[in-house]
Amino acid sequence: MSDAPTAHPFDAALQLEPTAAPGAYRAHTSPAYNNMVGPFGGMTAATLVGAVQSHPDVLGDPLSLTVNYAGAIAEGELDIAVTPARTNRTNQHWNLEISQNGEITTTATAVFGLRRETWTDTEVTPPEAPEPTTIDRAGFPEFIAWARNYDLRFVAGGLSERQSPHPDSISTMWIRDEPVRPLDFTSLTAMCDAFYPRAFLRRGTYLPAGTVTFTVYFHATSDELAAHGDDYLLATARAQRFGKGYFDQTGELWSHDGTLLATTHQLVYFKADNA
Amino acid sequence: MSDAPTAHPFDAALQLEPTAAPGAYRAHTSPAYNNMVGPFGGMTAATLVGAVQSHPDVLGDPLSLTVNYAGAIAEGELDIAVTPARTNRTNQHWNLEISQNGEITTTATAVFGLRRETWTDTEVTPPEAPEPTTIDRAGFPEFIAWARNYDLRFVAGGLSERQSPHPDSISTMWIRDEPVRPLDFTSLTAMCDAFYPRAFLRRGTYLPAGTVTFTVYFHATSDELAAHGDDYLLATARAQRFGKGYFDQTGELWSHDGTLLATTHQLVYFKADNA
Repeated sequence: MSDAPTAHPFDAALQLEPTAAPGAYRAHTSPAYNNMVGPFGGMTAATLVGAVQSHPDVLGDPLSLTVNYAGAIAEGELDIAVTPARTNRTNQHWNLEISQNGEITTTATAVFGLRRETWTDTEVTPPEAPEPTTIDRAGFPEFIAWARNYDLRFVAGGLSERQSPHPDSISTMWIRDEPVRPLDFTSLTAMCDAFYPRAFLRRGTYLPAGTVTFTVYFHATSDELAAHGDDYLLATARAQRFGKGYFDQTGELWSHDGTLLATTHQLVYFKADNA
Repeated sequence: MSDAPTAHPFDAALQLEPTAAPGAYRAHTSPAYNNMVGPFGGMTAATLVGAVQSHPDVLGDPLSLTVNYAGAIAEGELDIAVTPARTNRTNQHWNLEISQNGEITTTATAVFGLRRETWTDTEVTPPEAPEPTTIDRAGFPEFIAWARNYDLRFVAGGLSERQSPHPDSISTMWIRDEPVRPLDFTSLTAMCDAFYPRAFLRRGTYLPAGTVTFTVYFHATSDELAAHGDDYLLATARAQRFGKGYFDQTGELWSHDGTLLATTHQLVYFKADNA
């Protein structure tokens, strides 16, 4: 028996082993963050952010991330390649790749950089929302393991509304890690992908859907993340167009005190009868 | 003297020479599409889309594109590397890179694919706009060469409003190629980057700004592009947060008849005094 503190499941899932090759890491999928098929895409994206952060040459904090989900990831080991493509005076461009058994499953690029004082303004406003403690915590179906690691409280567009077609695709929810964990760039990345597919809400049913490409613009500074701590974030997302086989989704993640921490966009593959 | 038809300046700028190496092309910057410093980023992005389209293994049409502007591009030759990272049954993931004199200037990823019939719906609505022919064509400063290749008619947030601070960052404009050219995926890509930096509008002045990363989600099918022809598109964009040194921008491009052809997002570097 050990008295060593147990790592938070999110930190356990983020764990990387460096290998002999520079910028090459080995990670392992975590059953706690499984999705219906393979790992939760937000966890995959967070792992890539963590891999860049652990690189000895990293410059500054994440500014943007784009992850392309090229193929299914099976449970097991992941090979992560992290390559600085170009380092400038104040920013740095990264090429990222995940493979399993020599086949590429995920491609990604990231921009990291230093921030400096400028004029600042947030032009959009957070959605109206009652305090999280006044809203019941949402249950997710048992087969979506990753959602059990989040305390989700829906203000609009919750899963319970997903039983008949819905006129819009807007979901707004409070979210924080369960158990609580201080927010950082990796967990903020994962939370940007914590919206269930907008097509479920519009069609009022589960249907085949999966993220094809996912982008995060990090507005939060390290100081803003520290000020947020382990409080709830207010997250909102909506689709813009459901086209032939694909729809897009755009979202915002706000701190409890109304700071826009990240904006996020994705293109999602879906199947739904033309009815 | 020759009677051969002259290529449209956009097609001339897109021109690629294949090289001996598979997936390696040579392009050349076009003075007609210069920006203040280096080429117009939309032209660079369009060139990458064209390079994938010219690859013998390409599958289907563009679904998404992310371009990271890692370093300045000088006038002259561009080396473009186009690599299929993974080909699935209905989609294909590409890694793209531009270099000059052996140094990476641009990294990018793209997803191409086949579309199929599904339920479709456009949830957002186009901005209100009078007919383009009722609005004067906007002039751009002489030093922005690329803008002379577009017929731009501002409905809101035009350059003339950029003389004192503006309460919001919304620009809405009609846009088409000048001279006219039938819309295709390359020109749609370029037009997604045709908004001048939102910080100019908010601050009411020119200031240093440049796109760091740029994403397009292509909603248009080939049939919708053909139906649009060389008509005006209605383009609208706004910023969400101006943070320390960076702001984001989100936009929509609509056909004249109200079809959402693309959504687009970018993160932009800027300098502006904290006043």
